Amino acid sequence: MNYKMMGKFMGKIIIVEAIFMIPSVLIGLWDRDFTAVGAFLATIGINLAIALLLHFFCKNSKDIFFAKEGMACVGLSWLLMALLGCLPFFFSGAIPNFVDAFFESASGFTTTGASIMPAVEGVSRAVLYWRSFTHWLGGMGVLVFLLAITSVGGRENGFTMHLLRAESPGPSVGKLVPKMRKTASILYLIYVALTVLDFIFLLFGRMDVFEAVCTALGTAGTGGFGVRNDSIAGYSSYIQNVCTVFMLVFGVNFSLYYLILIKQVKNVFKDEELRMYVLMVVGSIALIVWNLKGFYETFGETVKHAAFQVATIVSTTGFASTDFDQWPGFSKAILFFLMITGACAGSTAGGFKCGRALLLFKGMKRSVQQVVHPNKVQVVRLNNHAVDEKVLQGVNAYLAAYVVIFIVSFLLVSLDGFSLITNISAVSACFNNIGPGFEAVGPTCNFAGFGIFSKLILILDMIAGRLEIFPILVLFSGATWRHR
Amino acid sequence: MNYKMMGKFMGKIIIVEAIFMIPSVLIGLWDRDFTAVGAFLATIGINLAIALLLHFFCKNSKDIFFAKEGMACVGLSWLLMALLGCLPFFFSGAIPNFVDAFFESASGFTTTGASIMPAVEGVSRAVLYWRSFTHWLGGMGVLVFLLAITSVGGRENGFTMHLLRAESPGPSVGKLVPKMRKTASILYLIYVALTVLDFIFLLFGRMDVFEAVCTALGTAGTGGFGVRNDSIAGYSSYIQNVCTVFMLVFGVNFSLYYLILIKQVKNVFKDEELRMYVLMVVGSIALIVWNLKGFYETFGETVKHAAFQVATIVSTTGFASTDFDQWPGFSKAILFFLMITGACAGSTAGGFKCGRALLLFKGMKRSVQQVVHPNKVQVVRLNNHAVDEKVLQGVNAYLAAYVVIFIVSFLLVSLDGFSLITNISAVSACFNNIGPGFEAVGPTCNFAGFGIFSKLILILDMIAGRLEIFPILVLFSGATWRHR
Repeated sequence: MNYKMMGKFMGKIIIVEAIFMIPSVLIGLWDRDFTAVGAFLATIGINLAIALLLHFFCKNSKDIFFAKEGMACVGLSWLLMALLGCLPFFFSGAIPNFVDAFFESASGFTTTGASIMPAVEGVSRAVLYWRSFTHWLGGMGVLVFLLAITSVGGRENGFTMHLLRAESPGPSVGKLVPKMRKTASILYLIYVALTVLDFIFLLFGRMDVFEAVCTALGTAGTGGFGVRNDSIAGYSSYIQNVCTVFMLVFGVNFSLYYLILIKQVKNVFKDEELRMYVLMVVGSIALIVWNLKGFYETFGETVKHAAFQVATIVSTTGFASTDFDQWPGFSKAILFFLMITGACAGSTAGGFKCGRALLLFKGMKRSVQQVVHPNKVQVVRLNNHAVDEKVLQGVNAYLAAYVVIFIVSFLLVSLDGFSLITNISAVSACFNNIGPGFEAVGPTCNFAGFGIFSKLILILDMIAGRLEIFPILVLFSGATWRHR
Repeated sequence: MNYKMMGKFMGKIIIVEAIFMIPSVLIGLWDRDFTAVGAFLATIGINLAIALLLHFFCKNSKDIFFAKEGMACVGLSWLLMALLGCLPFFFSGAIPNFVDAFFESASGFTTTGASIMPAVEGVSRAVLYWRSFTHWLGGMGVLVFLLAITSVGGRENGFTMHLLRAESPGPSVGKLVPKMRKTASILYLIYVALTVLDFIFLLFGRMDVFEAVCTALGTAGTGGFGVRNDSIAGYSSYIQNVCTVFMLVFGVNFSLYYLILIKQVKNVFKDEELRMYVLMVVGSIALIVWNLKGFYETFGETVKHAAFQVATIVSTTGFASTDFDQWPGFSKAILFFLMITGACAGSTAGGFKCGRALLLFKGMKRSVQQVVHPNKVQVVRLNNHAVDEKVLQGVNAYLAAYVVIFIVSFLLVSLDGFSLITNISAVSACFNNIGPGFEAVGPTCNFAGFGIFSKLILILDMIAGRLEIFPILVLFSGATWRHR
């Protein structure tokens, strides 16, 4: 293991984290909220001190870097980032319990949005801003950001590819342009532009500027932390619909927006994952509207709530506009299905991803066809290209790991004695980075009731879900740490 | 497709079914229950008539037979067998609704044991015997039986291998001896011997002879239909413990019993799947006993109920000795986990199978190791043999198909508006061939509340679960029926 290279890199990441805390300090000063200012300054100090130590011990690193270092580095970076990112919550007294603060921070960076805070109204605005900003940074990825702004050393496309592959969601990572650094910049430019657009649309709905900033950040990262106790339910229909549209927009593969920018719109419409995503969204809304007949007063309201809930769940955002836990069984079953599928690969959304589900389904179809025609060579095709067998194997390995982690987490969390559906949906909501689940973790409740042990399990689930499992599994594998 | 060969074969199967109805006719005559006698004689007549027609139309069949015909033939045979097997329930008036009768019959043959009958006490003994016997025949497989008693034509080891592979549970089918026919005979001899042993042990507990026969048949097939309204709960502790032991015994791979017969006991203890099974059973019992502290009056009673419930769920039998739906969350979570895992491959139990889970886990471990050491060739080993990559691919394809069918069934069954956990556990209980689930399909309730559409979905799930999915998927694949 090239520990020095890893240390150097992690140092850079926590410096980035410290820099991004400055807006919170400014908000605190503006609000004359000196508790918050102190909390953020102390955290910035701690971050810089650790970064300095890492720089000092790791300065003579060699330039050799393998996939396992990439995986382990990303896994550790995220753990460290969540751990340091929770300090403002803890120091400011917003969350007095340390494990709870860690949970909230991990939930933020992983864009889960599962909260242990019973009420957010009255909490310091500096803290609330930071809470929403973690979604934004975690959504596109802090490593991607680092790659976009700085040369991180190491040979291009070897080192950086390992890191990007570990942090980016989806079964295979494509490069938009030959240079990784430029790819990362383009992704972040699109991300910033869409976030600003969302913000402007929210302002048009006469939303308070601070609330619009936080809501836009939470929507862009498909996170789900709100700044009001009733999440989005209290806002106007216009604002709710803007959220619906932008949650869906941030669930689309960002490389498709790049294709639009370079005027290859034709290829966008041909994208099979996008087609599946649109079909799933439209189909789910239609079925829920049908199933909810008579549940809300008007047809328009039914469509609005159905669309909002489908968008919030499929994009794994987790805002709430109504208590969907009260819906009839079939509608809940559809939401449960969307929880697991998630949105597109290469978006800021969590979950298993449509693209993976599509490959899984095609792989299954091929298995059946192989029984029927055993001697015919069958190739799985996506967007008219043959899919590499390694990618298919990866998807299957991912499903296996997903199921194993899901079941183990479910068993461990069950120790707290909640109902089966609370436990299943709590694990699902954290592991898929959604936020709310059903029953005791439904949209009107929160995760505060779980014990410390369960919270730690759920924190690991959130990070494993965001990093797509393997960077965390690598951390737990003996082979990673053994010297050769 | 070689329709004639398939027809010829299906004719033989329904003749076997008709012959096995004769004991019911005799019981009916003994009880002077002429309604039942009439129902069984009519069914036997219908079976023979259809068999005659099939014989007439399919006599000049060619001897060419591929895997797809094997799969389709097994899938269709089981559907036909369940359809004809439900006629005695329907004709005798024991189940007045035809879809319900079909559900009960499919539940019997697939050894699920999910029932729509609100009460079984007072139902004709001839009908109850047939109901339990379907478990026994379905447990080891009717095709295996046919192979054991008759030469079915076709080249040995080609034709028969395709059929056996389609009907036998587990990731790979081993032959005990070079000849398939002898393998089938040995399996059935062990099966009969163990069933008789169970019966004798039950008689020692002063159980009524008829009830002992039915209970032994239901235990051997790991089915779960009982002859009393409270299943096994009303019997003595001795009888409950006998059931516990034999349910576990029938969950073990039968080829291990063959190894004991030929005195290779050493290899039995080395079997990794058996080790996992024993570990899972013992571990689950211990954890549940710990979790149930104070739930029952004495420690002995707690152990008895914990062991019984673990045995009934892991072996996918479905007998009940207590209402486990009242247990605390962690115990229920363990049962839910055991529901899905199931017992050993090559046993009469349903579920995903320990052996598959083991291969899945090893495959996942390898994926992680491949990240760490990308250039090292890694082989998955089971019982000290390298596992063929095709078997691993098969396990992954199985998981994918399992998940897809589970989710689709869950969505469709949800239309009836029951709770999420009722729907999830109803699909799980049927697809894994267990019987009872949680909440509205818990051990004290039954499946009568579901609508016709849901019942048909659950019937397909039961048959897909028993035949391990692919024979049913092949039936639904366009490629199967297309002419080349």
